[in-house]
Amino acid sequence: MQNAHSDIKALTFDVFGTVVDWYGSIVAEGETFGNTHGIDIDWAQFALKWRAGYGPAMDKVRRGELPWQNIDALHRRILDGLLDAFEITGLSETEKEYLNRAWHRLKPWPDAISGLERLRKRYIIATLSNGNVALLTNMAKFAGLPWDCILSAELTRHYKPDPEVYQTAAELLGLSPNEVMMVAAHPGDLRAAQAVGFQTALVPRPLEYGPDNVREVTAHPSDLVATDFNELADLLGII
Amino acid sequence: MQNAHSDIKALTFDVFGTVVDWYGSIVAEGETFGNTHGIDIDWAQFALKWRAGYGPAMDKVRRGELPWQNIDALHRRILDGLLDAFEITGLSETEKEYLNRAWHRLKPWPDAISGLERLRKRYIIATLSNGNVALLTNMAKFAGLPWDCILSAELTRHYKPDPEVYQTAAELLGLSPNEVMMVAAHPGDLRAAQAVGFQTALVPRPLEYGPDNVREVTAHPSDLVATDFNELADLLGII
Repeated sequence: MQNAHSDIKALTFDVFGTVVDWYGSIVAEGETFGNTHGIDIDWAQFALKWRAGYGPAMDKVRRGELPWQNIDALHRRILDGLLDAFEITGLSETEKEYLNRAWHRLKPWPDAISGLERLRKRYIIATLSNGNVALLTNMAKFAGLPWDCILSAELTRHYKPDPEVYQTAAELLGLSPNEVMMVAAHPGDLRAAQAVGFQTALVPRPLEYGPDNVREVTAHPSDLVATDFNELADLLGII
Repeated sequence: MQNAHSDIKALTFDVFGTVVDWYGSIVAEGETFGNTHGIDIDWAQFALKWRAGYGPAMDKVRRGELPWQNIDALHRRILDGLLDAFEITGLSETEKEYLNRAWHRLKPWPDAISGLERLRKRYIIATLSNGNVALLTNMAKFAGLPWDCILSAELTRHYKPDPEVYQTAAELLGLSPNEVMMVAAHPGDLRAAQAVGFQTALVPRPLEYGPDNVREVTAHPSDLVATDFNELADLLGII
């Protein structure tokens, strides 16, 4: 394995679902928020619908139906619709913003920090997320994620899987695409990275959508496949 | 002091001269390189001339006389001229690139890491340098600088002190300018940051140009002034 990947200088990581458990975190934030604000709804459904709004919202930006806006703004658009749909009323602007920023407070999967600490002994490790720079920076600080560099789709004003996001990341790292390995739980992200020349590693996260919605993903033959970040470090030969 | 600065959420740092000792580092790199390659020149003069070429090179980009290029590329342009001027011949492309990347291996001032570790307990700490993202990322890894986020003039394709650099940094951090404090050894950098609404801290580095070229700088009345990053943490009330 090590020989095949000997060109790698940097690993870029998808974040939502790959590094952090957005589902469990948003449900827990919602339940706490609901308890303190007297809101009794199904927060699991709320979390799933919030996330389900994300792809269509980015598509609107991609098609030019919405002007460029970052994920904090898109999360807020979706949240405002959900507050209506779930008939949640009476929240102040500060409370809505606090809830929206639950996405800055997502918790890592149990293996994420220990795996990243091992991987960064040999490689530059960077985010490469559709999340905006502030969200990713605040999340890293909140969760203790030891990134060397915060890279985001926001820097290109394109969203993954647009090729510009990956190309710009390699350029900013001063590397050729084959010196970068994209790590993600989502095959679509890896295929787009591979199309511009990145190496790829699939780390399936079957519980991304919660225990009642276990997802199976299919690796491409060229993907390195690891069950978590520590196994990825093992496969790359890092002690 | 703490009250006057209670809005601050993030500190952005100039890097060359403010965080790292480029003069001492480049002289030491040059002397080592010279010893292994049989090049006997005055590396202090070489370092000062390399740095002296930096402002004029950025000005050429600013005026459109050169297309956009990052600091790695500008450092290399200047280096190629200096190799001619100092009559250094016979270096391979790999050797020239190694020498050029001495700017990725600059060493922090003695107080920098301990001061940054204290400051980051309360604030987001980010670079805001004309150095490119790869240079700053590699330097952080080499030197152990604990940045939360790497921000660079490269992200705007403008060089400091152009206002776009500071404005974009605040936007990417999701903050209003008065929530950000620019920390630099150079009053010009602070004046430009202040012009877009940043708070400012001057940390003079009298030895930036070496012990034979001690520089005095003058603070603006609105600047916080600290002799090093630990005193800055003291002034901001961080234990």
